[in-house]
Amino acid sequence: MREMFDQELETVQERIVDIAESVFTIVTDASTAFLEADVKAADRALAIAETISEKALSLDELVIRTLALQAPVARDLRILVSTLRISASFERMAALASHIATIARFRFPDSVVPDSLSDTFDEMARLDIRLSKKLIKLLKNTSVDLARSIQSMDERVDELHREVFEVVLDKKWKESAMYTVDVTLASRYFERIADHVVDISSKVSYLSTGDWSDADLED
Amino acid sequence: MREMFDQELETVQERIVDIAESVFTIVTDASTAFLEADVKAADRALAIAETISEKALSLDELVIRTLALQAPVARDLRILVSTLRISASFERMAALASHIATIARFRFPDSVVPDSLSDTFDEMARLDIRLSKKLIKLLKNTSVDLARSIQSMDERVDELHREVFEVVLDKKWKESAMYTVDVTLASRYFERIADHVVDISSKVSYLSTGDWSDADLED
Repeated sequence: MREMFDQELETVQERIVDIAESVFTIVTDASTAFLEADVKAADRALAIAETISEKALSLDELVIRTLALQAPVARDLRILVSTLRISASFERMAALASHIATIARFRFPDSVVPDSLSDTFDEMARLDIRLSKKLIKLLKNTSVDLARSIQSMDERVDELHREVFEVVLDKKWKESAMYTVDVTLASRYFERIADHVVDISSKVSYLSTGDWSDADLED
Repeated sequence: MREMFDQELETVQERIVDIAESVFTIVTDASTAFLEADVKAADRALAIAETISEKALSLDELVIRTLALQAPVARDLRILVSTLRISASFERMAALASHIATIARFRFPDSVVPDSLSDTFDEMARLDIRLSKKLIKLLKNTSVDLARSIQSMDERVDELHREVFEVVLDKKWKESAMYTVDVTLASRYFERIADHVVDISSKVSYLSTGDWSDADLED
């Protein structure tokens, strides 16, 4: 019985790493689409994003089946419950990255990013890509240090998000309302992707520390 | 044993209705703050919003304890698992409404809403308030019809969200970038609040139909 259960937990972990890898690809392609007005990258991001809901749903079903059949307690129960929250966060990350790809797609062949914001968005997108990458590592092998570096990278993303508003609200900003709308939304999406990474990493830390309060109070 | 469990399920339901009522108040106050540049309403929304994470956390702990101690199956298991997702959605609704209140607060004593958008935001905010209200009813007494009317109200919110962009991207739009940024974000927040209502109501429907796929594929 225990052996069967361990096998199910392993399957759960493999599936969640698989989702994390797809989300990493989506975030990377969406960022490329956005930064470089690359419509093919946008299409790739949107195509992979479509598969995520299905994958998350099937993982959730496995988790619920396991909860029902094995009635796990303690750490095993926590892993399964956290998995449900983690899969929901990955779904949102894929949706947010899709929105970024869609903005880039609409504007093609023009670029969404005016020169005055290209460095800011470049750094923000690269941080999101690195954050999504770190998540894969963290899910394969929990490490509290990694979770901490995720936290500080998210803080930098927040700073860059504020920087976008500073540029847009400055007197020197002369772009059309279309640019203002697109960069406002895109910046929000990049910032929310980083938030979800922090959210997921807190839940993974929680698995090792058992301290649930850390995992849920950030907002 | 069963009797004790029924009592726990009842407590879970009471607590979630309590959270739903607080979120309804937050959405109402945040909308008033936003539509009428009412700084007191903004402060009320922000103060109540601060209590939601704590309430959601304590509900989650109760649910996890119940999962561990009672090892429920079938419908009971589904109720508890759904509760975890529902509480997370309510937390997000409170956070989104807080963002709306904060925008209103920053701009006080001026209004965030230019005349050209006042009807659109008025309708959107009123729909969000009504949606949050319907959620309380739905949680007290599941009804598939109510879930359907929620769906159609959300579609109207999506239309209004698109309308905001049409107005902002029209040649006649002469407002500053500050207005553009604020209405873009606020419109997104109102739209996401309605999405969460649909999300929660699908999960409540799922409890009665057992059809999980409906509950998780919308985005």
